[in-house]
Amino acid sequence: MKHPTHTTFAIIAIASAAIPAHANQAPGLVDQYRPAANRIINAVRAGNGAYDKLEQLCDGVGHRLSGSPQLDQAIDWAVQTMRADGHENVRKEHAMVPRWVRGRESLLMTEPRAMDLAMLGLGGSVGTPPEGLTAEVIVVRDEKELASLGRRVSGKIVLFNNIMPAYDPREGSGYGSAVKYRLAGAAFAARHGAVACLVRSVTATSLRSPHTGAMSYEHAERKVPAAAVATEDAAMIARMIARGQRVVVTLKMEARSEGEASSANVVAELRGRERSDEIVVISGHLDSWDVGQGAHDDGSGCVMAMEALTAIRRLGLTPRRTIRVVLWTNEENGVAGARQYVKDHAAELPLHAAAIEADSGGFRPTGFSFQFDDKRREAIAQRQLEEIASLLAPLGATQMRAGGSGADVGRMRPAGVPLLGLNVDGSRYFDYHHSQADTLDKVNPTDLTESTAAMAVMAYVLADMPGRLGQPE
Amino acid sequence: MKHPTHTTFAIIAIASAAIPAHANQAPGLVDQYRPAANRIINAVRAGNGAYDKLEQLCDGVGHRLSGSPQLDQAIDWAVQTMRADGHENVRKEHAMVPRWVRGRESLLMTEPRAMDLAMLGLGGSVGTPPEGLTAEVIVVRDEKELASLGRRVSGKIVLFNNIMPAYDPREGSGYGSAVKYRLAGAAFAARHGAVACLVRSVTATSLRSPHTGAMSYEHAERKVPAAAVATEDAAMIARMIARGQRVVVTLKMEARSEGEASSANVVAELRGRERSDEIVVISGHLDSWDVGQGAHDDGSGCVMAMEALTAIRRLGLTPRRTIRVVLWTNEENGVAGARQYVKDHAAELPLHAAAIEADSGGFRPTGFSFQFDDKRREAIAQRQLEEIASLLAPLGATQMRAGGSGADVGRMRPAGVPLLGLNVDGSRYFDYHHSQADTLDKVNPTDLTESTAAMAVMAYVLADMPGRLGQPE
Repeated sequence: MKHPTHTTFAIIAIASAAIPAHANQAPGLVDQYRPAANRIINAVRAGNGAYDKLEQLCDGVGHRLSGSPQLDQAIDWAVQTMRADGHENVRKEHAMVPRWVRGRESLLMTEPRAMDLAMLGLGGSVGTPPEGLTAEVIVVRDEKELASLGRRVSGKIVLFNNIMPAYDPREGSGYGSAVKYRLAGAAFAARHGAVACLVRSVTATSLRSPHTGAMSYEHAERKVPAAAVATEDAAMIARMIARGQRVVVTLKMEARSEGEASSANVVAELRGRERSDEIVVISGHLDSWDVGQGAHDDGSGCVMAMEALTAIRRLGLTPRRTIRVVLWTNEENGVAGARQYVKDHAAELPLHAAAIEADSGGFRPTGFSFQFDDKRREAIAQRQLEEIASLLAPLGATQMRAGGSGADVGRMRPAGVPLLGLNVDGSRYFDYHHSQADTLDKVNPTDLTESTAAMAVMAYVLADMPGRLGQPE
Repeated sequence: MKHPTHTTFAIIAIASAAIPAHANQAPGLVDQYRPAANRIINAVRAGNGAYDKLEQLCDGVGHRLSGSPQLDQAIDWAVQTMRADGHENVRKEHAMVPRWVRGRESLLMTEPRAMDLAMLGLGGSVGTPPEGLTAEVIVVRDEKELASLGRRVSGKIVLFNNIMPAYDPREGSGYGSAVKYRLAGAAFAARHGAVACLVRSVTATSLRSPHTGAMSYEHAERKVPAAAVATEDAAMIARMIARGQRVVVTLKMEARSEGEASSANVVAELRGRERSDEIVVISGHLDSWDVGQGAHDDGSGCVMAMEALTAIRRLGLTPRRTIRVVLWTNEENGVAGARQYVKDHAAELPLHAAAIEADSGGFRPTGFSFQFDDKRREAIAQRQLEEIASLLAPLGATQMRAGGSGADVGRMRPAGVPLLGLNVDGSRYFDYHHSQADTLDKVNPTDLTESTAAMAVMAYVLADMPGRLGQPE
């Protein structure tokens, strides 16, 4: 999933209703593209293959971690499917990805009583010795509290019981701040002498369902194993310790890194009619964590991009520029696919008119975030996007926000590529995210259709508009 | 949890606001008991030990299936705790209970691809051979569809994919109708030649969280193993089969019945000041399924009853009749505790002025259901309960409904004991029910306090009112 650079965004434009017709130059984007946008929306709503593709991916392949046979299978499926849809230049673009293997794992509480805890090792973690690591648990809320404990941490297992707040429509999910200890908890724990790190699962809602995700040993003095526990179990351990009880656990993890594996981004195009060397990328990531089905994260983003291209093609709407679908490999634990893309396409990046990523789940679309380094271009883009928002009004996808785009397209930022992210109603996303519960049934077909239409309209307008996004007309 | 005899109830009286003061005789129950009811409510709200007791039970003991060492531990804890609270006649009342052991279990899909499914064996099920049962899955919605398949069922594993509807405030949970295949699915499946039975978990909300519960071989020609699968996995198998795929699974269960074990109901009393031989029972069941912590089902009901008695005692409110807390054993899979109580107390049952059970979760109270066989007594009781509803108005617990009371107190029905059940806001109950997610954190302390107060007020008024509930004054 995408990692927002900050948790709250300034909402720059909300409702297209507030924008008078002909607000800017004439003929504006609204007048030029209203008919095409409506055609796209009506066609996608009348029938599209997004949900069927998602079912093929989720049920037919299942989860698909980098370096797994399932990801290879998903890549082959995407190539075949996009060829069958009649797209051009359908191809794999090779990239080496890290191969991390979970193996068997368990977390057994042995004091004050015996109990199996609900856990998932964190991606990238080292394993434990075969007999496991047995130690007393120390619970802290944050790094500051950990530091205050001094030498008492030595030899212990640290549990970061950092509570993710419930979703707030104004504040968003709170994921950005809550995920800190999943990413860096092991390094903090090792610095203070701990033998392993546990983190409360990064979610506000749980049915005893642990959530995995990437961790990092950056700045770590030693590599200690790291695992997420269900919020229920983290809360229980914290209560026991607050009651003065000594909590001892045995953590067993076979987790290991097995070097690199060959993988690929999957690419397909609708070649532009006039400036086909200029590119608008629409994208999602094909890899997932090794639990659930990767339905919201990010099967949904992939099928939106695939189906947006199909819808535009079937309507015979050949835009000025080329629209390129990219289904990234290895977003979850390395972003190696996007890194490779940036290398392989370095010469072409200045011709990227925009790169859009959908990696916030297959929910109802609310709008797009956009990311420019150049303030002058951002101001121009903002005005243009406010016009496009009016075209997206039938979908309710009218919020245009300066903010994070996506982890993959984010790699193009140094090259100055205009970046966009599809925003959706994220109120339930983190209930499922990186867990066994991220399955097809959690995706509403109507929501997926609406988001597919939003992607298609945005892609078509950015690929066809006379000037590029962020450039003076 | 309690098993309602029907899923919808006629709401007989809703808001106490609609009841004029002095509606019946003077002085009515309202005038007589308003001061005491308010004292009880204020005292319970000012501070009570219900949540602390629930934490001791959930964290200190955990789940506690009949015949398990944990249930013995819970029974001892309840005795000690009620003695420490200063109650009279605190004792265990012996009962033999069935001992069913889950053992290890797994459900592996082998076709169309390999995948571990999320499952929980059903309580009472037989196990499989050590190598498991491997067979093709047939999906049906109900018994009728199963019957229509004829000989095709033979040798297969039947999956009942009966979908429990989302909670509806007017209709309730829909549990009553949905639970049919959990209880009787194995018998249906065996009748048509199947080798095992799978049921979609009885819940409308899931994060890949299977729900166990009792099943029965009543009327079964053969005993075939039965397990619940997570709703997500049931839905996936149904989708695969709808796509024309053959689904094969291997079910392994070590489940076995190990005869009977010694157990006990736990009893404590506040002896009445005038007619101490007359009894008002307030109760919950101490046993739970062997997953989660049995927090809502039914640790909450137990601590409400315990703490209601403590609150009344601490206020020095000694009622006319005796209030007796009964913490039942074996509600979940046999109701052996209540059966034994009815035997042991047969002579005393005519002196039971009422028996109340709280077994719908530790949520916000909404009122009470009541169960009379005698229509004339029911009509009198209804008028009396409408008055008591007015006393419960500060708690919002004013709905008095004719309907099911509780599985345990229900055993006293043949003896003509007036039965009541505490009703609560059940909108989330089945999200947690019989699953790993039924843990302390799901219980809101304020809700538990309000329900405790409702139990205390009802118990006190029924124990102190001049005539008995349902008797002409």
